[in-house]
Amino acid sequence: MNILITGGSGFLGARLARTLLAQGSLALAGAPAQPIQRLVLVDRVAPPADLALDARVQPLLGDLGEQLAAGALPLGEVQAVFHLAAAVSGECEADFDLGMRSNLDATRQLLEGCRHAGHTPVFVFSSSVAVFGDSPEQRLPAVIEDNSLPTPQNSYGIQKFIGEQLVADFTRKGFVQGRNVRLMTVSVRPGRPNAAASSFLSGMLREPLAGERARCPVAPETPVALSSPGNTVRGILRAATASAGQWGARTAVNLPAITTTVGEMAQALERVAGKEATALIDWEPDAQIAKIITSWPSRFNPKRAQALGLAADESFEAILRDYVRENPQAVKLDVKG
Amino acid sequence: MNILITGGSGFLGARLARTLLAQGSLALAGAPAQPIQRLVLVDRVAPPADLALDARVQPLLGDLGEQLAAGALPLGEVQAVFHLAAAVSGECEADFDLGMRSNLDATRQLLEGCRHAGHTPVFVFSSSVAVFGDSPEQRLPAVIEDNSLPTPQNSYGIQKFIGEQLVADFTRKGFVQGRNVRLMTVSVRPGRPNAAASSFLSGMLREPLAGERARCPVAPETPVALSSPGNTVRGILRAATASAGQWGARTAVNLPAITTTVGEMAQALERVAGKEATALIDWEPDAQIAKIITSWPSRFNPKRAQALGLAADESFEAILRDYVRENPQAVKLDVKG
Repeated sequence: MNILITGGSGFLGARLARTLLAQGSLALAGAPAQPIQRLVLVDRVAPPADLALDARVQPLLGDLGEQLAAGALPLGEVQAVFHLAAAVSGECEADFDLGMRSNLDATRQLLEGCRHAGHTPVFVFSSSVAVFGDSPEQRLPAVIEDNSLPTPQNSYGIQKFIGEQLVADFTRKGFVQGRNVRLMTVSVRPGRPNAAASSFLSGMLREPLAGERARCPVAPETPVALSSPGNTVRGILRAATASAGQWGARTAVNLPAITTTVGEMAQALERVAGKEATALIDWEPDAQIAKIITSWPSRFNPKRAQALGLAADESFEAILRDYVRENPQAVKLDVKG
Repeated sequence: MNILITGGSGFLGARLARTLLAQGSLALAGAPAQPIQRLVLVDRVAPPADLALDARVQPLLGDLGEQLAAGALPLGEVQAVFHLAAAVSGECEADFDLGMRSNLDATRQLLEGCRHAGHTPVFVFSSSVAVFGDSPEQRLPAVIEDNSLPTPQNSYGIQKFIGEQLVADFTRKGFVQGRNVRLMTVSVRPGRPNAAASSFLSGMLREPLAGERARCPVAPETPVALSSPGNTVRGILRAATASAGQWGARTAVNLPAITTTVGEMAQALERVAGKEATALIDWEPDAQIAKIITSWPSRFNPKRAQALGLAADESFEAILRDYVRENPQAVKLDVKG
C-alpha cells in the first residue's frame, strides 16, 4: 500500500508518518491490513532526519499548488491521501489571497487529481474546530453537537468548511472515499511558535519548560478545548480505518477534546515543573488574539467520534507529562512527580 | 443608483428587473431611497422585449465567467449586485464540471470583482433550499430552523452552500455587504420546462392550464415547500433593503414557503380549472427525480425572514390564481371562481 501525506514534514504530518511506519501496515476503510510500501511526504521543507532515512519514505519537496498543477504527485499510485497541508489562521487573516490559494484552491486541485486518478482513494481531510465561531449576531450553542451549524468567524475557518463541502460532494460522486475530521486545538506542540492564533496554547507550556519566557495573551478564565498530539493523530488515523458504514454521514466528525481553561493549564504546569515554570509566563492581554480564541467553542458532545472508539485525553496534566516524556531535550527545568 | 443582475434575462431576474423599474428607486441597506439610473442585465440571452425597450436597461450578453475574466462588468459603477445566475440542479448532476464552473467559480470571480472595485457594494446571493438534503445517514430535522445544518445531497446544493460561505467571508472582510437568501422552490414558473429536478412543480399546473399533458413524477402525498414568483422576488428585494442591523448574522436567511403536497396542488388546479385540467396530469413515477425531491425539506420555521416582514403565500390556490391573472396568454382552459 502507498500513502500520501500533504504537509508531511509538518509537526502532525511527521507524527502521523512515524505512527504509520511504526505499525508497518494499515487497515484502510474496514479492509484487512496491508503492508505500507511507500509513504510520500509532500511539503515545502524536507522531512525530519529519522523519516528521511526510512527507505519507505519518498519526500516530494515544493509548493503543493505548483506540484498539483505540474501533475507531480503520484495520485494514481496511492490508496490513501491524508491532506494536512494548510496556511494557518493568522496567515489567512493577514493575507486573504494566500489562504484562498493554500486552503481552498489546493484542496480542490488535490481532490480533482484524485478524481482523475480514477480509483477512489481514501481521502482524509483535516478540518478544524475553527469552523465554529461565536459572534454577537450568531451565538454558538453552549455545547457543540455533531450537527451544530458551523459559523466561521475567520477566513481559515471558512476555507476549511468549504473544503469539507468539496470532500463531501467528491465522495458522493464516487471520486474519493472522503473523511472530514475536525481537529481540535493541539497542545502541547513541540518546536517553535507559528502564526496560528492558538500558538500560545503550546508556547505557554513549552517555553517555560525550556526555561524561556512566554506570553499568554488571554485571561486565565478563558475556556479552551484541547487535544494532545498523540490523540489527534489517533483521530486522523481512525478516519482512514473506519469502514464507510462505521463512518456514516459525509459531514465532518468533531474529534474529542478536553475542556479546560488557560488558568488550569498554568496550574498543571506548576504541578509538573513548579512555580519556577509559571513565573516565566507573562500575562499580557492581546485583544486581537483574545477575540479569535474566545470565539471558538470549548464544550463538545462528540458522539460520532465516541462511536468510532475515540476519547478525549485524560487530563491536561497527563498531556503535559506526555510532552515532557516525548521531548526530553526541550525540557530544562526539573520535573516533579 | 446603478444595479447589476446576473441571470437578468431569466425568469426571476427579469421579474426582479421589472419590479425595480416599476418602483423607480431603491432604499439600499437601510439608506434613503435613490432613483435607479441604470440596470445592467447580464445573461447569455437577450432580455425580454419590455425590458430591452426601457432606456435604463443595459443588457450585457455573454457567458458570466468569460465576462468576468475579461473585466467586462461595470462593477466599479454599481451599488448593488443581485447574483441570480446559476446552472440548475439537473445540469449540475449531469455535468459536474459545468456546475463547479457556473456556480462556484463564477460566484467567486464576481465577489473578487466587487472586492477589487473597492466600494463595498450590496451583494445579494440567491442560495437555495437545495442546501438541505435528507439522507439515510443524516436525517433532516422535522422542521428547518434558521440555524439548522445544511447537508446538501447534490452538487447544486453543495455549490450554493459554498457560495454562501464565500459571501459571508467577503462580507466579514468588508469587500461586499453580502446577503445570503435561500430561495424556496418557485411555483408557478411561466414558460417552458427546464433541467431542474423541481421543474414539474410548475409544469404540472402550467401545461394543463395551457391544454397540454404534463407528467408528475412523484406520488401525490409528497410534501413540498413552495413560494410564488412574486413572493420570491419580494424576499430577494428585502435582502437588499434591510440594514446591516436588521439583517443580522452572515449566515443565510431561509425565505418563507407554504407547505403543501403535490396532491393538494392538483386539487387546487381542479378548483381553478376543473377536472378537465387534472385529467391532463400523467402520474408516472420517476425514481431519480423522486429521490431528489423527497430529500428536500418541506417544513420551515423562518424566524429571521418573518422578523424582516416577510411571509409565506396565503395558499397554493392563491398562487395559482395569481399565475392565471398574470399569464392570460398561457391559459387555454376556462377558469372557475
